[in-house]
Amino acid sequence: VEGLRLLEEIFDSDFKLEHLFYCPPSTLSERARTFLNRCHEANIPVEKIDRTTLNRLSDTIHSQGFIGVAKIPRSTPETVTHSSGHNLVALNNVKDPGNLGTIIRTAGWFGLDGVMLSKTSVEFTNPKVIRASMGAVFHLPIYPDVDLSRQLNHFIKNEYRIFSADVHAEKSIYDIDFGRRNVFIFGNETSGIDAPLRALSTSVKIPRFGKAESLNVAISAGIILSEFKRRH
Amino acid sequence: VEGLRLLEEIFDSDFKLEHLFYCPPSTLSERARTFLNRCHEANIPVEKIDRTTLNRLSDTIHSQGFIGVAKIPRSTPETVTHSSGHNLVALNNVKDPGNLGTIIRTAGWFGLDGVMLSKTSVEFTNPKVIRASMGAVFHLPIYPDVDLSRQLNHFIKNEYRIFSADVHAEKSIYDIDFGRRNVFIFGNETSGIDAPLRALSTSVKIPRFGKAESLNVAISAGIILSEFKRRH
Repeated sequence: VEGLRLLEEIFDSDFKLEHLFYCPPSTLSERARTFLNRCHEANIPVEKIDRTTLNRLSDTIHSQGFIGVAKIPRSTPETVTHSSGHNLVALNNVKDPGNLGTIIRTAGWFGLDGVMLSKTSVEFTNPKVIRASMGAVFHLPIYPDVDLSRQLNHFIKNEYRIFSADVHAEKSIYDIDFGRRNVFIFGNETSGIDAPLRALSTSVKIPRFGKAESLNVAISAGIILSEFKRRH
Repeated sequence: VEGLRLLEEIFDSDFKLEHLFYCPPSTLSERARTFLNRCHEANIPVEKIDRTTLNRLSDTIHSQGFIGVAKIPRSTPETVTHSSGHNLVALNNVKDPGNLGTIIRTAGWFGLDGVMLSKTSVEFTNPKVIRASMGAVFHLPIYPDVDLSRQLNHFIKNEYRIFSADVHAEKSIYDIDFGRRNVFIFGNETSGIDAPLRALSTSVKIPRFGKAESLNVAISAGIILSEFKRRH
């Protein structure tokens, strides 16, 4: 986890900051000083590193100089099955870390209850995902490595409605009826949603009014979740 | 412009392909052969390059081996003033090329009539913008270097309604009335929309239902343009 803003959010989450590396800047901001004090009070090992080491650890070009290692609270498919969450996002083979982070951020904004990831999706612990989520990854239950077919069958038995975002669908997201409990599936950037998952769900489209061939998957997720919350 | 898919789209646009560099792969696909024939017929200079030169020219890690140079049909603020387009996007200081490209792609999907860019926004000719737009940049009028205050005043006199996406707005995008002609302003990733532009417009928000602090600017644009088209 890189950058003060994201590191601060760990303290208010179920993640556990285990180690902090920092490359002391020429002057330490008030915010940085407060954060270092907080680490000290929480007995988190703080290790000074030089610029060369920082650049080796860092994922960004202009690093602020603060990099932390945090322990992830593992959410398993079993916890999603027994969660009290009634509206979830399921991601089938989403590969781009920016897209995954942005979808988590958006699901957090709209108050969804969690995000399930197929085994083939990019890992949510990828630093680019954490960054694009703007910290939402710390506050929303993320369920990695989920066998989506199995999980969706379980949800269907429990009266969830399952929707697939599909550019070729007949039904428009503006017209469909949502359930009391819902799962929204979004698929791969190129190939969309796998056929077995589509077969378990109602395909919905975002109507097109112009010439572009498709929408970015995170944009589709934003539009569909907005439409859901507007009417739910 | 990099990659066969994007290069093909240039031919159906007002952009003019002026030069093609390509690094011959071990086997040339049918699609690549067709494209090279098309370049030949259009008298476009085609230059073979080696892998080292390709990597120097390329902006991606796994280049497909096709890079073109295209002439941009310059749209000026004057052309936007006299355009027949009645629904436009205005971007005030949007800095991330991925966000700009995605917003152009989304504006293309929803059939907006063009995208105006403030002088301080990232250049739309940035290869990352072209890529994220998935070619939409070739089919939608883009107006760079626009003095937005001046331009918006002109639009207001011509009975356009101007909306600013603002996380702190009182009015919800789900409730406001759109005009017959509309401009939608989206702002900087960190600082939002400049005060003088906000003063010329109606601020609208996307209601929050969860805990996340903000939405990505391209997601906001997607949701607002979707809501507009749904009701317009």
